[in-house]
Amino acid sequence: MTCMATAQPVIDALLARQDSVIERLKTLLRFESVSTDSAFNPEMQRTRDYLCAWLAGIGMKNVQLLDGGGHPAVYAAWEEVGTDAPTLIIYGHYDVQPANPVELWRTPPFEPTIVGDRLYARGASDVKGSTVIAIETLAEYLAVHGGLPVNVKLFLEGEEESGSPSLGRIIAKYGDLLKADAMISADGGRASPVTPTINIGARGLTGFQFEIRTAAKEVHSGRYGGAIRNALHEMARVVASLHNPDGSIAVDALRAIARPVSNAERTNAAALPFDEAGFLAEVGAAGAGEPGLTIRERLTLFPSIDVNGMWGGYTGEGSKTVIPEVAHGKITVRLSPGMDPGAAQQAVRAHLEAACSEGVTIRFDDSRGAGSPASNIAPDHPLVKAAHKVLLAETGQQPVLVRLGATVPITALFSRKLGLDTLMFGMNLPDEDVHAPNEFFHMESIPLGLKLWPALLAELAAFTPADFRTATIRSGVAP
Amino acid sequence: MTCMATAQPVIDALLARQDSVIERLKTLLRFESVSTDSAFNPEMQRTRDYLCAWLAGIGMKNVQLLDGGGHPAVYAAWEEVGTDAPTLIIYGHYDVQPANPVELWRTPPFEPTIVGDRLYARGASDVKGSTVIAIETLAEYLAVHGGLPVNVKLFLEGEEESGSPSLGRIIAKYGDLLKADAMISADGGRASPVTPTINIGARGLTGFQFEIRTAAKEVHSGRYGGAIRNALHEMARVVASLHNPDGSIAVDALRAIARPVSNAERTNAAALPFDEAGFLAEVGAAGAGEPGLTIRERLTLFPSIDVNGMWGGYTGEGSKTVIPEVAHGKITVRLSPGMDPGAAQQAVRAHLEAACSEGVTIRFDDSRGAGSPASNIAPDHPLVKAAHKVLLAETGQQPVLVRLGATVPITALFSRKLGLDTLMFGMNLPDEDVHAPNEFFHMESIPLGLKLWPALLAELAAFTPADFRTATIRSGVAP
Repeated sequence: MTCMATAQPVIDALLARQDSVIERLKTLLRFESVSTDSAFNPEMQRTRDYLCAWLAGIGMKNVQLLDGGGHPAVYAAWEEVGTDAPTLIIYGHYDVQPANPVELWRTPPFEPTIVGDRLYARGASDVKGSTVIAIETLAEYLAVHGGLPVNVKLFLEGEEESGSPSLGRIIAKYGDLLKADAMISADGGRASPVTPTINIGARGLTGFQFEIRTAAKEVHSGRYGGAIRNALHEMARVVASLHNPDGSIAVDALRAIARPVSNAERTNAAALPFDEAGFLAEVGAAGAGEPGLTIRERLTLFPSIDVNGMWGGYTGEGSKTVIPEVAHGKITVRLSPGMDPGAAQQAVRAHLEAACSEGVTIRFDDSRGAGSPASNIAPDHPLVKAAHKVLLAETGQQPVLVRLGATVPITALFSRKLGLDTLMFGMNLPDEDVHAPNEFFHMESIPLGLKLWPALLAELAAFTPADFRTATIRSGVAP
Repeated sequence: MTCMATAQPVIDALLARQDSVIERLKTLLRFESVSTDSAFNPEMQRTRDYLCAWLAGIGMKNVQLLDGGGHPAVYAAWEEVGTDAPTLIIYGHYDVQPANPVELWRTPPFEPTIVGDRLYARGASDVKGSTVIAIETLAEYLAVHGGLPVNVKLFLEGEEESGSPSLGRIIAKYGDLLKADAMISADGGRASPVTPTINIGARGLTGFQFEIRTAAKEVHSGRYGGAIRNALHEMARVVASLHNPDGSIAVDALRAIARPVSNAERTNAAALPFDEAGFLAEVGAAGAGEPGLTIRERLTLFPSIDVNGMWGGYTGEGSKTVIPEVAHGKITVRLSPGMDPGAAQQAVRAHLEAACSEGVTIRFDDSRGAGSPASNIAPDHPLVKAAHKVLLAETGQQPVLVRLGATVPITALFSRKLGLDTLMFGMNLPDEDVHAPNEFFHMESIPLGLKLWPALLAELAAFTPADFRTATIRSGVAP
């Protein structure tokens, strides 16, 4: 049986009962599953109960909660395809951001409301919409074929919106249960409503806090002003030295370890239609950065340094005539493909150190470690090949391979801890006001997802676990 | 009768009853007159009651409280010398700094304890010691001569240690009562234990808060890092542009309005022995500032710019991957003699504005106003001439005319509101741990004060109100 022969009846059945999928999504959206506020703990519990009952009801096995000390993850598996077939973790999360400020919502945040093509509710886009599509795909496979085309381990996190505090413990505790060949994430969506895209990587991240000290104590600006160094002036000078006036990086040692952007990468980056002026206008910002690169190239293929926080001296109401003796800064560095996080951090630290004046001390906080390298899936990885095939078949367009500027913590963690590559296959779009009032999900994404997800699972059945192992090594992530 | 003929019997009597002066000081030091903490309000009231009773008891007239809505000032006058004699306000304050951290005191802060040459207690140096010397001088004149050599209005503030919040209202409300020809302050002490000094001025002060904005909102450093400006980078660059690497001011327009340091000023500044290395080592700071000037010259005869506070972005625990859209700063500028505060502030603002990149906005907070110019007493002012004569007579050394780097708020306020020049004639010394645990007063300062204060009042009797009016105009302060 060909892949599409397997998937088509599932797709047909899902499209025929779209209304029930929408009702299911609405039901899930009515749960106020806010993970960050303990007032919602009972509602979180009810959400898990609902999911467990649903998953057991559709025939998923081994339904259980994976408890790492916080909000447990919901787990369910179907592993009856045999060891020749790949095993895939499907990732989603059942928690949502808080709805406040509630007064800015035009419809009740936990009463899903359809207006035109939009389904408004907290969590509609992030990420209950895509999660329901993934689960309904599993349900329909089990209903139509009595089984799935690949082994699946469904993992629905409960703390994604509160920084995944216990995810590391869950992975450590349930490592055997989470063994798999790769991961498909319902979180992390489409880059464009008109162009099919496949994410093939994300920038890495390293960062640290530091302090600059110019004296043993804070002194009076009248008694000392003009005769000693001020820690804020020194911090300003040192931070200013990180960039050139055009905003490009002035740390030579960091530039030296950034791989030049290749023509193939430029071609990929240019393939996605991108409105540079609109991108800047949306956040009211002036453009700045590496000359000779487009914004998409700057964001995804080149490192960046950002001071995320900087403070010192008197920051309260009114005035205090002091010369601060110490100033603090927090820095993160986004890493382009191939950069070693430790070497990148060291390059920035050495630059800061060298920029300090004589008699000034700089101290680095080592508690955050070296960080994560850029992630990367080989373009011929089974995940990418399968996604490419189903997107091309559905849209009639060649999918564009895109990279993210941001590091995806969940992807980085599963890669580091379990050696898994991740395909982000959420259906959500960038304009859906995620984390903000009036979050919504484009209704057209529902039938699209109901076509793509069954086809993707069917395509992945064409690969063996060995194909994934080889591909994972090519992606540059140790298994 | 010559001046010393008037003063000598007063001095002799005071020195003969030094023990009673010390007992009086100890009594005053036992009052826990902490103005900044309302828990001490009853004790503040008891301190005022004690002072009023004492002042009435020695024969001062018109004893009353001047109430501006906070802790009232204690007022007493003796104006029976006639309108040909000058009228002088004698300023002191009866409040003290809090004693905490109390555990760092080696003796109880409110139980005065003599160890060797030192009298330890909160407020001993700042400024009950010198205040008692001033009042005892008045008491002894009234006892010996039945009157004072000059008209005196004693003004003892109750909020000096908490920022004088109601002093402006007191001056406005009791302006007629406070009319005088000049002021002598018991606060503001000796610059050196071995060299007699007379303070002839202080730097002025102007300052403002500002913010730099690079975008309409805070954004994610992964999604935007390397493509837009970061408000903290911009703040750093702009603040760094205020100074040259050696710490000297890089604001040309500010330098342009700073009067060059004259040879006479340099001679005065050099006359006070000053240990530059010790000055820096005491606060563990590296020296920096205007090349070609000594530290004393930098501190007192040249402007300085200090960023007193600077902040933006995420300043809490851990890390947050944001690109801040706005950064804040607080700046004060110390003004050398002759600089217009408004012009100086404008020069710095214009520099900051010009330093901003295209597309970046800077906004200034105007709420602090233009500030105060440097204060200045003409070297031939009656206050200076009288102080010079008594210091020379007592020590056998030529007094050195010194300037302060710091602005003295009380002096600036009385100058601006009442047109009064002030002579700082406190007996305290720089090493007395003012505002810190184990504050003390050098015991040797008591007999010195009991000789200098009676002599000073007698010398000032040689001048007429007209002499002060002329001198005040020469000092550059409008009457």
